[in-house]
Amino acid sequence: MFKGIDHIGIVVRDITSALPLFQEGMGLKLLGIEVIAEDNVKVASLAIGESRIELIEPIKEGTPVFRFLEKRGEGVHHIALRVEDAKEAIGRLKEAGLKPVEGRSQTGAMGMEVAFIHPRSCHGVLMEVCEELKPRGKREDGHL
Amino acid sequence: MFKGIDHIGIVVRDITSALPLFQEGMGLKLLGIEVIAEDNVKVASLAIGESRIELIEPIKEGTPVFRFLEKRGEGVHHIALRVEDAKEAIGRLKEAGLKPVEGRSQTGAMGMEVAFIHPRSCHGVLMEVCEELKPRGKREDGHL
Repeated sequence: MFKGIDHIGIVVRDITSALPLFQEGMGLKLLGIEVIAEDNVKVASLAIGESRIELIEPIKEGTPVFRFLEKRGEGVHHIALRVEDAKEAIGRLKEAGLKPVEGRSQTGAMGMEVAFIHPRSCHGVLMEVCEELKPRGKREDGHL
Repeated sequence: MFKGIDHIGIVVRDITSALPLFQEGMGLKLLGIEVIAEDNVKVASLAIGESRIELIEPIKEGTPVFRFLEKRGEGVHHIALRVEDAKEAIGRLKEAGLKPVEGRSQTGAMGMEVAFIHPRSCHGVLMEVCEELKPRGKREDGHL
Protein backbone atom coordinates (compact mmCIF):
# COMPACT_ATOMS: atom_id res chain seq x y z
CA MET A 1 0.00 0.00 0.00
CA PHE A 2 2.75 2.49 0.96
CA LYS A 3 5.40 3.36 -1.60
CA GLY A 4 7.62 5.41 0.68
CA ILE A 5 7.98 8.49 2.82
CA ASP A 6 6.78 11.40 0.72
CA HIS A 7 7.79 14.15 3.13
CA ILE A 8 8.29 15.26 6.69
CA GLY A 9 6.45 18.43 7.70
CA ILE A 10 8.35 20.73 10.09
CA VAL A 11 6.66 23.77 11.63
CA VAL A 12 8.91 26.83 11.73
CA ARG A 13 8.26 30.32 13.00
CA ASP A 14 9.51 32.00 9.87
CA ILE A 15 10.36 30.29 6.57
CA THR A 16 12.58 33.10 5.32
CA SER A 17 14.93 32.89 8.28
CA ALA A 18 14.85 29.06 8.41
CA LEU A 19 15.59 28.44 4.72
CA PRO A 20 19.35 29.25 4.65
CA LEU A 21 20.08 26.43 7.12
CA PHE A 22 18.26 23.87 4.98
CA GLN A 23 19.35 25.23 1.59
CA GLU A 24 22.91 26.36 2.10
CA GLY A 25 23.79 24.60 5.36
CA MET A 26 22.34 21.22 4.47
CA GLY A 27 22.54 21.62 0.69
CA LEU A 28 18.89 20.76 0.00
CA LYS A 29 17.31 22.03 -3.22
CA LEU A 30 14.32 24.34 -2.82
CA LEU A 31 11.50 23.10 -5.04
CA GLY A 32 9.13 25.96 -4.34
CA ILE A 33 7.26 28.05 -1.82
CA GLU A 34 3.47 28.22 -1.87
CA VAL A 35 0.56 29.35 0.27
CA ILE A 36 -2.06 26.72 1.13
CA ALA A 37 -4.85 29.21 1.83
CA GLU A 38 -7.27 26.56 3.13
CA ASP A 39 -4.82 25.56 5.87
CA ASN A 40 -3.55 29.10 6.54
CA VAL A 41 0.05 28.10 6.02
CA LYS A 42 2.99 28.93 3.81
CA VAL A 43 5.01 25.86 2.75
CA ALA A 44 8.57 25.59 1.43
CA SER A 45 9.34 22.23 -0.20
CA LEU A 46 12.93 20.97 -0.24
CA ALA A 47 14.09 17.83 -2.08
CA ILE A 48 15.91 15.04 -0.24
CA GLY A 49 16.41 11.89 -2.32
CA GLU A 50 12.99 10.74 -3.43
CA SER A 51 11.35 12.51 -0.49
CA ARG A 52 10.87 16.11 0.59
CA ILE A 53 11.12 18.22 3.69
CA GLU A 54 8.29 20.74 4.07
CA LEU A 55 8.88 23.83 6.18
CA ILE A 56 5.48 25.07 7.34
CA GLU A 57 4.82 28.57 8.64
CA PRO A 58 1.40 29.51 9.99
CA ILE A 59 0.07 32.72 8.44
CA LYS A 60 -2.99 33.30 10.62
CA GLU A 61 -3.46 33.39 14.40
CA GLY A 62 -5.70 30.80 16.05
CA THR A 63 -5.39 28.22 13.25
CA PRO A 64 -4.26 24.62 13.96
CA VAL A 65 -0.63 25.10 12.88
CA PHE A 66 -0.41 28.43 14.73
CA ARG A 67 -1.64 26.72 17.90
CA PHE A 68 0.82 23.84 17.40
CA LEU A 69 3.65 26.39 17.26
CA GLU A 70 2.39 28.20 20.37
CA LYS A 71 2.00 24.99 22.36
CA ARG A 72 4.93 22.82 21.25
CA GLY A 73 7.29 25.23 19.53
CA GLU A 74 9.07 24.53 16.28
CA GLY A 75 9.49 20.87 15.33
CA VAL A 76 8.13 17.90 13.39
CA HIS A 77 4.42 18.42 12.74
CA HIS A 78 3.48 15.46 10.54
CA ILE A 79 4.86 12.66 8.42
CA ALA A 80 3.47 11.94 4.98
CA LEU A 81 3.43 8.52 3.35
CA ARG A 82 3.00 8.09 -0.40
CA VAL A 83 0.34 5.76 -1.78
CA GLU A 84 -0.94 4.81 -5.24
CA ASP A 85 -4.54 5.51 -4.39
CA ALA A 86 -5.38 7.81 -1.46
CA LYS A 87 -9.05 6.84 -1.24
CA GLU A 88 -8.35 3.11 -1.19
CA ALA A 89 -5.56 3.60 1.39
CA ILE A 90 -7.80 5.63 3.70
CA GLY A 91 -10.47 2.88 3.45
CA ARG A 92 -7.96 0.24 4.51
CA LEU A 93 -6.54 2.40 7.30
CA LYS A 94 -10.04 3.04 8.68
CA GLU A 95 -10.61 -0.72 8.76
CA ALA A 96 -7.37 -1.01 10.74
CA GLY A 97 -8.77 1.38 13.35
CA LEU A 98 -7.11 4.62 12.25
CA LYS A 99 -9.29 7.73 12.35
CA PRO A 100 -9.15 10.32 9.54
CA VAL A 101 -9.14 13.99 10.50
CA GLU A 102 -12.39 15.33 9.08
CA GLY A 103 -12.74 18.64 7.28
CA ARG A 104 -9.10 19.06 6.31
CA SER A 105 -7.74 20.20 2.98
CA GLN A 106 -7.86 17.60 0.23
CA THR A 107 -5.08 19.23 -1.78
CA GLY A 108 -1.70 19.70 -0.16
CA ALA A 109 1.58 21.22 -1.28
CA MET A 110 2.86 20.17 -4.72
CA GLY A 111 -0.76 19.63 -5.83
CA MET A 112 -1.07 16.25 -4.11
CA GLU A 113 -4.28 14.62 -3.04
CA VAL A 114 -4.01 14.20 0.71
CA ALA A 115 -5.82 12.96 3.80
CA PHE A 116 -4.80 13.10 7.45
CA ILE A 117 -4.96 10.44 10.17
CA HIS A 118 -5.60 11.72 13.70
CA PRO A 119 -2.61 11.36 16.04
CA ARG A 120 -4.80 9.99 18.83
CA SER A 121 -5.40 6.87 16.72
CA CYS A 122 -1.78 6.57 15.58
CA HIS A 123 0.55 6.69 18.60
CA GLY A 124 0.75 10.47 18.69
CA VAL A 125 1.74 10.80 15.03
CA LEU A 126 -0.20 13.10 12.69
CA MET A 127 0.05 11.03 9.53
CA GLU A 128 -0.71 12.31 6.07
CA VAL A 129 -1.50 9.91 3.25
CA CYS A 130 -0.76 11.45 -0.12
CA GLU A 131 -1.20 10.44 -3.70
CA GLU A 132 0.96 11.91 -6.40
CA LEU A 133 -1.21 13.36 -9.13
CA LYS A 134 -0.28 12.02 -12.53
CA PRO A 135 0.61 14.50 -15.28
CA ARG A 136 -2.57 15.02 -17.24
CA GLY A 137 -1.95 17.97 -19.54
CA LYS A 138 -2.79 21.57 -18.93
CA ARG A 139 -6.11 22.17 -17.25
CA GLU A 140 -8.47 24.88 -18.34
CA ASP A 141 -7.58 27.04 -15.36
CA GLY A 142 -3.98 27.11 -16.52
CA HIS A 143 -2.59 24.92 -13.73
CA LEU A 144 -0.74 21.76 -14.61
CA MET B 1 25.34 15.40 0.87
CA PHE B 2 21.99 13.82 1.81
CA LYS B 3 20.80 10.78 -0.13
CA GLY B 4 17.33 10.58 1.38
CA ILE B 5 15.27 9.99 4.48
CA ASP B 6 16.62 6.87 6.12
CA HIS B 7 13.96 6.56 8.78
CA ILE B 8 11.53 8.29 11.10
CA GLY B 9 11.83 7.33 14.78
CA ILE B 10 8.53 7.11 16.68
CA VAL B 11 8.49 6.63 20.45
CA VAL B 12 5.82 4.15 21.61
CA ARG B 13 4.93 2.93 25.07
CA ASP B 14 5.01 -0.73 24.10
CA ILE B 15 6.32 -2.17 20.82
CA THR B 16 4.39 -5.42 21.13
CA SER B 17 1.03 -3.71 21.30
CA ALA B 18 1.93 -1.09 18.65
CA LEU B 19 3.25 -3.50 16.02
CA PRO B 20 -0.05 -4.96 14.72
CA LEU B 21 -1.22 -1.51 13.57
CA PHE B 22 1.96 -0.95 11.57
CA GLN B 23 2.39 -4.52 10.33
CA GLU B 24 -1.13 -5.74 9.64
CA GLY B 25 -3.06 -2.47 9.56
CA MET B 26 -0.60 -0.54 7.41
CA GLY B 27 0.99 -3.55 5.73
CA LEU B 28 4.60 -2.62 6.55
CA LYS B 29 7.20 -5.39 6.63
CA LEU B 30 8.98 -5.92 9.96
CA LEU B 31 12.72 -6.03 9.34
CA GLY B 32 13.71 -6.86 12.91
CA ILE B 33 13.56 -5.97 16.58
CA GLU B 34 16.71 -5.24 18.52
CA VAL B 35 17.85 -3.77 21.82
CA ILE B 36 20.24 -0.81 21.64
CA ALA B 37 21.67 -1.29 25.13
CA GLU B 38 23.68 1.93 25.08
CA ASP B 39 20.53 4.00 24.52
CA ASN B 40 18.30 1.87 26.79
CA VAL B 41 15.75 1.29 24.03
CA LYS B 42 14.18 -1.53 22.08
CA VAL B 43 13.71 -0.73 18.38
CA ALA B 44 11.45 -2.34 15.77
CA SER B 45 12.37 -1.49 12.18
CA LEU B 46 9.69 -1.53 9.49
CA ALA B 47 10.33 -1.07 5.77
CA ILE B 48 8.56 1.65 3.79
CA GLY B 49 9.87 2.11 0.25
CA GLU B 50 13.57 2.87 0.54
CA SER B 51 13.11 4.20 4.07
CA ARG B 52 12.14 2.74 7.44
CA ILE B 53 9.93 3.52 10.37
CA GLU B 54 11.52 2.82 13.74
CA LEU B 55 9.27 2.16 16.71
CA ILE B 56 11.27 2.97 19.83
CA GLU B 57 10.37 1.76 23.32
CA PRO B 58 12.36 2.92 26.34
CA ILE B 59 13.45 0.01 28.52
CA LYS B 60 14.83 1.91 31.52
CA GLU B 61 13.36 4.67 33.68
CA GLY B 62 15.04 8.06 33.76
CA THR B 63 16.75 7.69 30.38
CA PRO B 64 16.30 10.29 27.58
CA VAL B 65 13.68 8.35 25.60
CA PHE B 66 11.80 7.43 28.79
CA ARG B 67 11.70 11.13 29.75
CA PHE B 68 10.55 12.08 26.22
CA LEU B 69 7.64 9.65 26.60
CA GLU B 70 6.75 11.00 30.06
CA LYS B 71 6.87 14.62 28.93
CA ARG B 72 5.46 14.56 25.39
CA GLY B 73 3.73 11.18 25.12
CA GLU B 74 4.01 8.89 22.12
CA GLY B 75 4.98 10.53 18.82
CA VAL B 76 7.75 11.39 16.40
CA HIS B 77 11.08 11.46 18.26
CA HIS B 78 13.63 12.03 15.50
CA ILE B 79 14.17 12.03 11.76
CA ALA B 80 17.19 10.35 10.22
CA LEU B 81 18.83 11.44 6.99
CA ARG B 82 21.11 9.14 5.04
CA VAL B 83 24.57 10.28 3.98
CA GLU B 84 27.55 8.71 2.20
CA ASP B 85 29.99 9.74 4.89
CA ALA B 86 28.73 10.53 8.40
CA LYS B 87 31.96 12.17 9.61
CA GLU B 88 32.17 14.49 6.60
CA ALA B 89 28.48 15.36 6.88
CA ILE B 90 28.77 16.22 10.57
CA GLY B 91 31.76 18.43 9.80
CA ARG B 92 29.76 20.38 7.20
CA LEU B 93 26.69 20.62 9.43
CA LYS B 94 28.82 22.00 12.27
CA GLU B 95 30.16 24.66 9.90
CA ALA B 96 26.52 25.51 9.10
CA GLY B 97 25.86 26.14 12.80
CA LEU B 98 24.24 22.84 13.76
CA LYS B 99 25.28 21.39 17.11
CA PRO B 100 25.94 17.65 17.49
CA VAL B 101 24.61 15.91 20.60
CA GLU B 102 27.71 14.77 22.43
CA GLY B 103 28.11 11.41 24.10
CA ARG B 104 25.44 9.57 22.15
CA SER B 105 25.67 6.10 20.69
CA GLN B 106 27.69 5.87 17.47
CA THR B 107 25.94 2.71 16.29
CA GLY B 108 22.20 2.77 15.79
CA ALA B 109 19.63 0.20 14.72
CA MET B 110 20.49 -1.88 11.63
CA GLY B 111 24.19 -1.48 12.44
CA MET B 112 24.40 2.05 11.03
CA GLU B 113 26.97 4.67 11.97
CA VAL B 114 25.02 7.56 13.40
CA ALA B 115 25.33 11.02 14.92
CA PHE B 116 22.65 13.29 16.33
CA ILE B 117 22.07 17.02 15.85
CA HIS B 118 20.60 18.88 18.82
CA PRO B 119 17.02 20.08 18.27
CA ARG B 120 17.82 23.50 19.74
CA SER B 121 20.08 24.16 16.76
CA CYS B 122 17.66 22.70 14.20
CA HIS B 123 14.20 24.25 14.63
CA GLY B 124 13.11 21.78 17.31
CA VAL B 125 13.99 18.72 15.23
CA LEU B 126 16.23 15.98 16.69
CA MET B 127 18.04 15.01 13.50
CA GLU B 128 20.08 11.87 13.08
CA VAL B 129 22.67 11.60 10.34
CA CYS B 130 23.35 8.01 9.42
CA GLU B 131 25.70 6.20 7.14
CA GLU B 132 24.91 2.79 5.82
CA LEU B 133 27.84 0.53 6.53
CA LYS B 134 29.05 -1.15 3.36
CA PRO B 135 29.95 -4.84 3.52
CA ARG B 136 33.73 -4.72 3.54
CA GLY B 137 34.92 -7.91 5.19
CA LYS B 138 36.44 -8.06 8.61
CA ARG B 139 38.66 -5.16 9.62
CA GLU B 140 41.85 -5.65 11.58
CA ASP B 141 40.25 -4.30 14.72
CA GLY B 142 37.68 -7.10 14.52
CA HIS B 143 34.74 -4.89 13.57
CA LEU B 144 32.84 -5.60 10.38
